[in-house]
Amino acid sequence: MTHTSVADLLAGKHQVGEQVTVKGWIRTRRDSKAGISFLAVHDGSCFNPIQAVVPNKLNNYDNEILRLTAGCSVAITGNLVESQGKGQSFEIQADEVTVIGWVENPDSYPMAAKRHSIEYLREYAHLRPRTNVIGAITRVRNCLSQALHRFFHEQGFYWISTPIITASDCEGAGEMFRVSTLDFANLPRTENGAVDFSDDFFGKEAFLTVSGQLNVETYACALSKVYTFGPTFRAENSNTSRHLAEFWMVEPEIAFANLDDAAELAEKMLKYVFKAVLDERRDDMEFFAQRIQKDAITRLESFISQDFAQVDYTDAIDILIQSGRKFEYPVQWGIDMSSEHERYLAEEHFKSPVVVKNYPKDIKAFYMRMNEDGNTVAAMDVLAPGIGEIIGGSQREERLDVLDARLSEMNLNQEDYSWYRDLRRYGTVPHSGFGLGFDRLVTYVTGMQNIRDVIPFPRAPRLADY
Amino acid sequence: MTHTSVADLLAGKHQVGEQVTVKGWIRTRRDSKAGISFLAVHDGSCFNPIQAVVPNKLNNYDNEILRLTAGCSVAITGNLVESQGKGQSFEIQADEVTVIGWVENPDSYPMAAKRHSIEYLREYAHLRPRTNVIGAITRVRNCLSQALHRFFHEQGFYWISTPIITASDCEGAGEMFRVSTLDFANLPRTENGAVDFSDDFFGKEAFLTVSGQLNVETYACALSKVYTFGPTFRAENSNTSRHLAEFWMVEPEIAFANLDDAAELAEKMLKYVFKAVLDERRDDMEFFAQRIQKDAITRLESFISQDFAQVDYTDAIDILIQSGRKFEYPVQWGIDMSSEHERYLAEEHFKSPVVVKNYPKDIKAFYMRMNEDGNTVAAMDVLAPGIGEIIGGSQREERLDVLDARLSEMNLNQEDYSWYRDLRRYGTVPHSGFGLGFDRLVTYVTGMQNIRDVIPFPRAPRLADY
Repeated sequence: MTHTSVADLLAGKHQVGEQVTVKGWIRTRRDSKAGISFLAVHDGSCFNPIQAVVPNKLNNYDNEILRLTAGCSVAITGNLVESQGKGQSFEIQADEVTVIGWVENPDSYPMAAKRHSIEYLREYAHLRPRTNVIGAITRVRNCLSQALHRFFHEQGFYWISTPIITASDCEGAGEMFRVSTLDFANLPRTENGAVDFSDDFFGKEAFLTVSGQLNVETYACALSKVYTFGPTFRAENSNTSRHLAEFWMVEPEIAFANLDDAAELAEKMLKYVFKAVLDERRDDMEFFAQRIQKDAITRLESFISQDFAQVDYTDAIDILIQSGRKFEYPVQWGIDMSSEHERYLAEEHFKSPVVVKNYPKDIKAFYMRMNEDGNTVAAMDVLAPGIGEIIGGSQREERLDVLDARLSEMNLNQEDYSWYRDLRRYGTVPHSGFGLGFDRLVTYVTGMQNIRDVIPFPRAPRLADY
Repeated sequence: MTHTSVADLLAGKHQVGEQVTVKGWIRTRRDSKAGISFLAVHDGSCFNPIQAVVPNKLNNYDNEILRLTAGCSVAITGNLVESQGKGQSFEIQADEVTVIGWVENPDSYPMAAKRHSIEYLREYAHLRPRTNVIGAITRVRNCLSQALHRFFHEQGFYWISTPIITASDCEGAGEMFRVSTLDFANLPRTENGAVDFSDDFFGKEAFLTVSGQLNVETYACALSKVYTFGPTFRAENSNTSRHLAEFWMVEPEIAFANLDDAAELAEKMLKYVFKAVLDERRDDMEFFAQRIQKDAITRLESFISQDFAQVDYTDAIDILIQSGRKFEYPVQWGIDMSSEHERYLAEEHFKSPVVVKNYPKDIKAFYMRMNEDGNTVAAMDVLAPGIGEIIGGSQREERLDVLDARLSEMNLNQEDYSWYRDLRRYGTVPHSGFGLGFDRLVTYVTGMQNIRDVIPFPRAPRLADY
């Protein structure tokens, strides 16, 4: 390809005076009385468009340039010059403007150049990437994902692709979607009338995974430091701004590690990726700070510069009780904290990210390691100011006898977990990990209010368009 | 964490004479008559284990060290010394060996220290990562995925997470899995007796995606250079060594790009990731060359050093006809080449990777760009010696009228593609892309014969264990 990205041009990677070609879409056109048009051209490579200054001496000035509207695609060749305008470094003195694609009926173009509500944009998920806000989210989302992979790579972790389709409905983290190739109009039946899943594709019932954790533990118990980064699913009927039926999760798992090691990893990881966004996507973050959330940049800076606070669940409950604050949900030992409690701790009490550790066993999963007190397990949540819980994790129960006791206490069937139990029968090791909802992370960083705006094509109850 | 990885120790990142602690699993134990035991300890951080030399003066020598078997987990502290042994750089003179986890009944431990067949290992997908071969595959798989993300990042691409669940069954690339939360035992019916999907989770029929391409085109038409890297699905009843029901795909898509640009990108990308594997995973590649496929390293080296050949489909057919070779499937213009044809071209005729371009329109998808001859489309396949097709791609039809003509020619419904058509109505641009089956890439690089061995938990007909 012989053209140059807007990002490279604006970053000064080309010499002033050089002949350059840029290809992109018109954001705005402004015509001066002096017979010059100013085209703002974006190609998504960075937040800002580049300005092309088009003189009326061009052959197609009257019949094409003056008809250009938002969304038209063009190729522009000309001289790169320093810009006289405010806020831009370089611009192009156009020698040639070729129209590649017109906008059919500009008046009804859904992304016409005006301010659209975020709800309106959601109706046009295939065109909204052309807007400033979705473009910026996309670049930040990419930056976070790249930084996560880079972080784990530098720390010696291996990426494991755990299965999406699972035949075990024993993960217990939430409602599951069924996956099937049976003919619904004509379901095969067993003799006693039940649906005969032995005819289904996998020869038994199959579902979409809710977490890769149990699977990835098998790799942690062999390669020591591993992580997943892939889609997970919840078939819950939650039509909220914080839930998706399909979302991406990051789940690191480390062998020879206790809960404190997991907390330390979580802190390092979050700081690393926030720093990457501040370093690499300043342009987009400035937009978020201007238009979406005033402290978008400063709160990441403050997140990075602070040590995480650490507090035991039991002490956290005391803090909440002694706060004198009237909470909607009453506080007592044993509760599953709600968002108001979490945010009070992070925003008002500690005024920093805080790791809450050692939760009551009765509100946590079977695989979390039992503490010596017999009442709590080695679980942790990372709470961040402005969002509440952002990470949940635990040390896993590596002692077979304790694990088995927990399984039977919770009426779970040992045989369903035979391979999971094998990890404890053969060279068991202390190990720990956590889960980070990637889309929630993007929500937090961008300051967007609704998680449906930070993923390209959101899936939720009654929503599976495109 | 206060211990050190085997990889760091063997790579010389610690000083000789330093006191170090390593944690891992026993691969082998050998006892000398002089009262010294040699433990090979691996932690998955690299191919080789580190040797710990354990003197019988340790307190637990008789009752623990001499009972250690393959798979036991240990922590070993001692002095790092240069190794006298052949083929290893450093070893540990152990001062302390702590047994963390025993192996229950070592004689029946499924991964006991002997050579297991790859088919046997497949029965123990949760324990096989502890073996040399699956460990090596896992590290190479990770290296390839890291290198792919890095390559696209360096080239200015943005990663897009296209949806896994899709309500459009119009992708046409293969049989799909249905996703549902309906109660199979009691399906809701419409008045005329059909299954009533309006009660299903998404309010309509939903499936697992077979490709993110159509979706990611919407982002290419806004951010110019994008790619997907995620799971895709085929509900085909193919029980072969080359097919999975669930596999990972990489799909770059570039705006303002023609078929040659896509071919150039494919060549650069493959060479980049192969070079990364040779640079970063020499240890594992040497194992593959020794045990799995003799030319595992040399064929990657040769792949990198050659320019890809380029040939038109029509010329390729002539070459096959004139070869005098008797093929199982007869050759004539219009056929969908089979593996024997592809391998003849790459391995015997060109003796290099080859890009075959401009296929007959009748064997290709509706979205591929019609060439001027009216008979062929701007499609390409990249064929590699030793495997055949590794990449398939095309320039996309960006002209609305031509696209619509193709849709009706193929009896496809315009309305099903309304959002896809919008990309052509509003600022359309030439754009191109391709798909790379990630698991096939891992198969190719490692020389493994069966794709089920290069993904942690393979899914295939009647196979969804773990």
